[in-house]
Amino acid sequence: MPKLVARCITISLDGFSAAKGQALDAPFGKDGMRLMEWAFATKYFAKMTGQEGGAEGLDNDFLVHSDDNIGATIMGRNMFGPVRGPWGDEQWTGWWGDDPPYHHPVFILTHHPRDPVAMEGGTTFHFVTDGIESALEQAKKAAGAKDVMLWGGGHVVQQYLAAGLLDELELHVVPVLLGGGSRLLDNLGDADVRLEQVRAVEAPGVTHLKYRSVR
Amino acid sequence: MPKLVARCITISLDGFSAAKGQALDAPFGKDGMRLMEWAFATKYFAKMTGQEGGAEGLDNDFLVHSDDNIGATIMGRNMFGPVRGPWGDEQWTGWWGDDPPYHHPVFILTHHPRDPVAMEGGTTFHFVTDGIESALEQAKKAAGAKDVMLWGGGHVVQQYLAAGLLDELELHVVPVLLGGGSRLLDNLGDADVRLEQVRAVEAPGVTHLKYRSVR
Repeated sequence: MPKLVARCITISLDGFSAAKGQALDAPFGKDGMRLMEWAFATKYFAKMTGQEGGAEGLDNDFLVHSDDNIGATIMGRNMFGPVRGPWGDEQWTGWWGDDPPYHHPVFILTHHPRDPVAMEGGTTFHFVTDGIESALEQAKKAAGAKDVMLWGGGHVVQQYLAAGLLDELELHVVPVLLGGGSRLLDNLGDADVRLEQVRAVEAPGVTHLKYRSVR
Repeated sequence: MPKLVARCITISLDGFSAAKGQALDAPFGKDGMRLMEWAFATKYFAKMTGQEGGAEGLDNDFLVHSDDNIGATIMGRNMFGPVRGPWGDEQWTGWWGDDPPYHHPVFILTHHPRDPVAMEGGTTFHFVTDGIESALEQAKKAAGAKDVMLWGGGHVVQQYLAAGLLDELELHVVPVLLGGGSRLLDNLGDADVRLEQVRAVEAPGVTHLKYRSVR
């Protein structure tokens, strides 16, 4: 049964996935890059950003395997780009250049319709205006027998989690206290979400936690 | 160098140490007892509550060793009892009967003065009205070469953490989403608290996390 999975989400010990002061040149907020140091040090990240080197090992393995068996991706529009409101001249096609690292259909949650954009390498951006259930349905159909990756941001993860639609949640907890910002596991209200701990893995300076939903 | 340590604090994955609806007969809030299931199952807990049995192993070890080298305890008045405001007839001497499980001086943060109360077994309750620094100073003096345990509640832990006075924080994270309640790592504001991950240990249904302050 194909799953909706959220992986590669780093949070501070006090639960924030971004610090206060998020801006175009500070996507993780003021001083929020501290969240990502463990990931930046990996070979996976080096490769993704066209650099040599980077560390192998436990942290790298988590990132490498986060891509396993993924056939489609869902993300919020703020992860796709800085454009707010209507899409205007439709020149914005994401942060990732002509050949985005997805190589499969990507469904972007937005209130503003836009025609699909086919990129190089098999990535096509689809813009979904009729809600999270619809996006999931379309993504599962596109993924076939594979899983669907929920890429974020935090508010999108919250919505899928509260709706009981998320099957797997993988968090990376770093020993940082941000004191404010965007809290990942917030706004869940009275949603009765039951989780099961799959594993907890200690690495230097980061704890990898994996959970799955119990229904 | 004697330390101020907070241990045995269980939080939900979304960071709450108690659910909404805390009351005298529901100290962890409505449905909040789910936080404590891992601890209730241990031999340590059974022994503490005068019962037979209970599980040994990893979880039990954490609880057993939480008492190691502790010479004094600090707690907020709400952990000491349900009395609010002035102490009235001073009949309340804690939840723990005539022989409380501390066997050392316990410093209770309160705005209302009261004379010390000597219990059986070496526990004496001292009431501190001049703030957290004073309580820590008195507790360290009383503990001698040993460490001081910060027992809670959450707001007291926050105050010591934000003031940079906490040396060690041990958390137990359970795969529960409460959606609301008392968040342990909250109200830290702009406090620049630097932590270092000491260890992360996976156990069935709970992850034990230990951090120490870096100064």
